[in-house]
Formats: sequence, structure tokens, C-alpha cells
Amino acid sequence: MYDLIILGGGPAGYNAAERAAHGGLKTLVIEERALGGVCLNEGCIPTKTLLYSAKIYDYAKHSADYGVTFGSASIDHNFVVERKNKVVKQLVSGIGAKLKKAGVEVVNATAAIKERNADGFVVTAADKEYVGKQLLICTGSSAAIPPIDGLKDSLASGFALTNREVLDLKEIPKTIVVVGGGVIGLEMASYFNSVGSKVYVLEMLDHIAGATDGEISKMLQKEYASRGVEFILGAKVTSIKDKAVSYEKDGKVSKLDADYALVSIGRRPRTQGIGCENIGLKLERGAIVTNEYGKTNVPGVWAAGDVNGKSMLAHTAYREGEVCINNILGKKDRINYNSIPSVIYTNPEVASVGETSESCKAKGIDAKIDTVTLKYSGRYVAENEHGNGVVKIITDKAHNNIIGVHIYGTYASEIIYGAAMMVETEMRVADVQKLVFPHPTVCEVIREAMFM
Amino acid sequence: MYDLIILGGGPAGYNAAERAAHGGLKTLVIEERALGGVCLNEGCIPTKTLLYSAKIYDYAKHSADYGVTFGSASIDHNFVVERKNKVVKQLVSGIGAKLKKAGVEVVNATAAIKERNADGFVVTAADKEYVGKQLLICTGSSAAIPPIDGLKDSLASGFALTNREVLDLKEIPKTIVVVGGGVIGLEMASYFNSVGSKVYVLEMLDHIAGATDGEISKMLQKEYASRGVEFILGAKVTSIKDKAVSYEKDGKVSKLDADYALVSIGRRPRTQGIGCENIGLKLERGAIVTNEYGKTNVPGVWAAGDVNGKSMLAHTAYREGEVCINNILGKKDRINYNSIPSVIYTNPEVASVGETSESCKAKGIDAKIDTVTLKYSGRYVAENEHGNGVVKIITDKAHNNIIGVHIYGTYASEIIYGAAMMVETEMRVADVQKLVFPHPTVCEVIREAMFM
Repeated sequence: MYDLIILGGGPAGYNAAERAAHGGLKTLVIEERALGGVCLNEGCIPTKTLLYSAKIYDYAKHSADYGVTFGSASIDHNFVVERKNKVVKQLVSGIGAKLKKAGVEVVNATAAIKERNADGFVVTAADKEYVGKQLLICTGSSAAIPPIDGLKDSLASGFALTNREVLDLKEIPKTIVVVGGGVIGLEMASYFNSVGSKVYVLEMLDHIAGATDGEISKMLQKEYASRGVEFILGAKVTSIKDKAVSYEKDGKVSKLDADYALVSIGRRPRTQGIGCENIGLKLERGAIVTNEYGKTNVPGVWAAGDVNGKSMLAHTAYREGEVCINNILGKKDRINYNSIPSVIYTNPEVASVGETSESCKAKGIDAKIDTVTLKYSGRYVAENEHGNGVVKIITDKAHNNIIGVHIYGTYASEIIYGAAMMVETEMRVADVQKLVFPHPTVCEVIREAMFM
Repeated sequence: MYDLIILGGGPAGYNAAERAAHGGLKTLVIEERALGGVCLNEGCIPTKTLLYSAKIYDYAKHSADYGVTFGSASIDHNFVVERKNKVVKQLVSGIGAKLKKAGVEVVNATAAIKERNADGFVVTAADKEYVGKQLLICTGSSAAIPPIDGLKDSLASGFALTNREVLDLKEIPKTIVVVGGGVIGLEMASYFNSVGSKVYVLEMLDHIAGATDGEISKMLQKEYASRGVEFILGAKVTSIKDKAVSYEKDGKVSKLDADYALVSIGRRPRTQGIGCENIGLKLERGAIVTNEYGKTNVPGVWAAGDVNGKSMLAHTAYREGEVCINNILGKKDRINYNSIPSVIYTNPEVASVGETSESCKAKGIDAKIDTVTLKYSGRYVAENEHGNGVVKIITDKAHNNIIGVHIYGTYASEIIYGAAMMVETEMRVADVQKLVFPHPTVCEVIREAMFM
């Protein structure tokens, strides 16, 4: 008998488990694959490992601009993949150690909710039954596999890849078609572009990078186009078979031959096969419905992370898991979805928080929008020959507070959390003007933008 | 006749000038060298340009750890120096353009205050007289040159260098002795270590890096010692002559032969020869005395930047200049010196804000101190084989608010501004726990540390 059973040991689940155990709850985590979930095993971390090697390789191409010359550079893709596996393994075992230390029990099996009884919720895993007074569902998401002609067979044959298989390719493809120009697609396009593949990005929308601010999305596209990535927008993929991807654009069908096709068109909450129906959990479009406290429609059952379909980001999952635990422990807590940062780890990086030009327009917010070159930063100029990065600041004219910050350039990923603090704490322009930013940094352009 | 005459076009002066002009003041800046001051011409920016080239060169040494191999790498020091000059020139002209656009007049000459008369303050420069209703003194600082035996001659002969000359060396020294293990000394030690010089650092104190948190100062020293930099602490330099530096340590005198000696033992406010005495300006230990509003003892005369001897950092100067202008314009403003971040651009970087372990002890603050490994960050692990970075968080037990943050590791420089916001806005641990940090980043370890 457990106080809490957590289904899924990804960012939502493993973090919640640790906090729960620290809060005195007897906690069980059931994870069918490895601790850390998609993020750690097949997502954020493996890609960053690959991208870092690519970045070093990229340096070699441009190092002469900075007075450093190399003999011929080469990248050993298999070494990179092996190192990625080593990094992942190290971090997975780190999570295991943390959970053990906190006193969390971990079962490595596929879990399903069987029923609710007088004691609590019964969960089955590897033919055993576990009972928890409360449940936290953190089963995450999996790659969306749309009904495209030939896709199923291509996945089976290894021509089509999801985020999972693409990370373990044994060779650098000569040509790869990335289907879906969102974050995952762009990061992998960036990697393969760096290591020498011919990369096509097919995107159904008229822009890449999803909900990213349009101006910045265009800058990113232009940059990668200049490096040889071919973007085909407004394209509907009609088949993925026979080592080719066919698509329709402006009424015309075309075909791209390739070694591989990466399918990265989105992710779906993993709610199938976990027994939601056995306790009457409410779903909407395949996601478990939760409120801002993480509560589902069934008292005692909580859900956090991708499975609720809200934000589909690891750090949101992380925080949602904590919110659930705080509420379970009686410390009322809620999550504010307005100030969640997001990052695309291309090179240069894109990082965003809050409203975009487009969202302001859609919501009718009267906004002041300033796009400021990073060349105001001495450090940026020192470190970026030919750089064209920007910081874009969006302020609500009504209260002069910062409602959106978007950065395109080096260090964006590590800078954006401070901007998220500005949005979260509703800082006004005058408040930021009084802060002292360190010099010389790229981040100080945020402050400079407050004087535009 | 000007509303405001600014003496010195460094970070305090040029920024104040722009804000003043935007605020409607007829403004004159008198600068004897180049706009941008020491920071841009002989400090922050040139060093960062050099250090970035060194960083790329360093990558080559360790790239095999990440699956990237190069033929033999070389660094062209003269190219690096020329590029540095190009970067500086670009940024200096950028400031010039900004001031011109704002309508600021700039005179390139040495200025001195002559007198106060009925109209205001009379300033002479290149045999002309200028009158300003108010004065803002931003004359900065220069390298301290202590009365060490032989130093004057060694500076003249080119054996001894200050921050100015060291940036334009035409060759990579075989051996260089860095006298003074503060920020400037360490950054240059880092550069010369990277490009292959044998580097000695002589420091009078028993620790390097000045007021940096002691634990982190030790980590930095250990890292560079492992790379071959020799640190000699508790050493009093007795002579700098005949291509050698002699020092006394534990009662014993030793001598280091070298190609060059960099003298970086501190900086002195530049108050001599600018006519402070002609208007009765109050000085203390050579610095112009100002209050938190930037006011001096003479009504209508303000001072900002290194010349007030308070913080000696470019970004403090920048903000102090703004504070003066705001007060001149009637918008009451003051600067809080508790939340000014500082950075040492070694590799790894050190960035700090607020109280240290040592300052808490000295002030009798009952503090909770957590030093947390950056290995909690997946990104850090992905990007740092053998990395041992940390985040150190200092909270005041009385109110559970964050009073100090110290980071030793990659991206520290770009992360610290957010921590400075926490200190400045007196955020409590519980407040930071509710923020969502992007994943995977190094900065998220700050948040993780809030759960220790």
C-alpha cells in the first residue's frame, strides 16, 4: 500500500516522486522503459549531446575568422552516438540514485490502472498489483504517426524514423527528409546539416518553428537555408515509401529521394492502454483533462506532463509534477502557463517566453514591439563574425509591463529564464531599467531594449 | 553653453550622454582618447575578443572527447590582435553614431575643470572653454602603478605591461609573470595559458580572484594550476627589472625570469589633473565622494563610474551614469550596490552576485549555504566531459531570501543577471521554486538548488 503511485518516470514523474518522498509520502514509480523518460532517453538530452559535437565541428569551419586554423576536421558520428549513450546512461543512473536516496520505490514494467477499490487505486505491472491512495499519471507522449501512405511499412523497414530511432543512426545520411519543421525537426535538421547531410524540411504550415514569433522563425529559416537546408513550406506529405517522400504543394505532387525520413510532426499524449477508462478518467482529444492544480476529474488522481496535452515541454512537466505533489501535500500550488520559456537548440539558438507578435494580434493586445540587434552587445560582436542575432521585447502598452521576450542568437537558451522571471513577475520596463546587467554579455541587450 | 558637460566617454559617460540627450539636455562629452573608455578600448571587450579565440583553440585540444578530430591546430596571435582592434573600432564607431544620433556633441581632447562662475562650470579642453550648467565626471580609472623597484623603467622599456599594452603584444610570450591575481590578471593568465605561454601568477593575498567566494576562487585556481599556471600566493613583489620579477614569500626572496610582466594589481580613480580642486570637490583616497544618487559635495556636479572608487565595474558605471541623469532630470533614482553581478571570463567562467560565504561571516549573517554540482544539468553533462562546475546559493535564514549566487562553469556570465534579479527583488526560495526554468539548461541548477 502506497500513499502515491506514479505512472511514468519521465521529468514529470521522477521529479514528483522525489518531492513526494521528501514530503513524507510512501511513493512508487512504475516506468516501462528507462527513468528520465523521452526527454532524457530520446529527446532533449541526447539531441543536445549530438548538437554540442556538431557545434564544435562547426567551430572548425569558421575558426579562421577568429585567428585559429586547423588541419582537416572530421566528425566521428558513431563516436558521437556512443558518447550520447554514455551521457544518457550517466544521467539515468543519477536519477535512479536520487530516487533511491529519497526512498522512492521504482518498478520497471508497463503499468495499467485496474480499478478503484475501498483502499485506493489498483495498478497492475508485470503481473503484480499495487495499491495507492492516490495516483499521479505521467505517461508522457509518443511521436504522432499520421495515416500517411507507406509510413507504417517505412517505420518497420527503418527508412522512416521517429525521434527515437534517429538518435541511433549508424551512419550520416547522404540525404534526409525531415517531415515537420517544429522544434524536434529543426534540431535534427541542424545536426545533420552540420555533419554534412543534404537536408530537406517539409512543413505543412507556411512557417517553421511552430508558435515561435514569426519574425524570428523567418530569420532562423533564412540562416539554415543559407547553409544548404531546403525548406519546403505549405507541403502536405502524401506518401513515405520506397526510399522517397512525396508531397503535394500548390496542387502539384513532387517526390524527394532520400536515405531516411524523420517523422517529427508532433506528439500525442500516451493515454492508451493505461486503463483510464477503468476509473472513468476524462480525456479530451486523447489527453487527460487537468486543471491548473494538476487535478483530473477523479478525486485522488492527478496528471502531469505531456499526458495532459497542455505544453508538451519537459520543464513544464517537471513543474506540473511538483504542483501536483504540493497540492497532494496540502500546500496549494498552481502553474502559470504564460511564463514558460521554450528553446530551439539550433546554432544560433532561439529562445522565447510569453506573447509573440502574432499572439498579441490574435488576442487584441495593444503591444509595443522592439526588435533590437545583438550587435549592441560587445561580447556578441567579439564572438560572432557576421552574426545577425536579435532580442525582441514585447510590452503591454496598457501597463508598460513585459509580456514577451524572444532571443535569436548565442546563449539564448541560458538567458531566457531571466526574461521568464520578468514576464512571470509582471515587471515593467522601468523595473528592468533599474537592474544592473553584467558587462560584457549578450543578455544586457534585453536591458538596452528597454530604452528603445 | 551646455546643460551638461560630461568629462569622459567611457561606459558611465557615453551612456549618460545618450540618456541625457534623450531627456532633452544639451550635452557635451569630452573624451581624451577613444569613446568607450578603458572598458571598450583596453578592457572588457578586447579581452573577450582574445579569450573567444583562445576558447575556440581550446576546443581543438578537447574536441576528440566529443567525437571531433582536427589536424594540427594553430592560433595566429597577430591575427587575433588585429581582429580585436577591428572589433573595438566597430564598437567605438557604433557609440559615436549613437551619440551623434542622440544629438550629443563630442570633443576629443583632455578636459580640466577651470572654475565655477555665474553661468555654471567652466571646462577647458584643447585651449577652448566650455560652460555647462551641470557637470558629470566620468574620468574612470587607470592601472595602479605601485612604487616597486624598477617598475617605472620596465614599463618604459616594455618589459612591464599594464592592461593597455598587454593587449597589443606582437608575440606570444614564452614566459609571462602576472603580478596580481584579480580579474584582469586571471583573464590574461587564461589567455596566455591557452595560447601556450608559461604563466606565473603572483598574488599578495592568500587567494586569487579578489572578493570572489573563497570556495569558488579555490576551484578556479585548482583548474588553472592543473593546466600549468603557477600560482604563488602570499607573495610581495620586490622588484620588476632586468627581465625578471622578484618577490618575497615567507621571508624568502625568489626571482622569476620572464619575457614580460603584466602589472594588474588594481586600479586607481583618475582624479588628478582634472581640476577637482578648482571647484572644491571632495575626494577620499583619490576617489570623488558621491552618494547613492551620484551627487558630489558640490551642487550641480555629479560623478559616475570608476572615478568614485565604489565598484570599478563597467556595468556599475553604466548604471551610475543613468542614475545621475535621472536625478538631473528630476526622476529620483538610486543605485543598489548589493545586487551588482560580476564575472571572470576564464574558461570555465566565474560569475557572482551578492553575499559570499566570507562576507556572511564578516557581517554575522546567519546564512544557509548550498553548493550544488552542475552535473544535475543534463546539458552541462552533455557539454562538459570532466566538468566540475557548481552553483552556490546563499540564503538569509531569517527571511529565506536569496542574498548570494555564485556560479563556476560554462554560461555563468550569461546566467548571473537572472540571479541578480533574485537578489535585487529579494526573492525567497519559495518564489524561485515556482518559476519554470527551461530544460535542458545549465541555469536550471539554480532552481534545483532551491530544493536542497
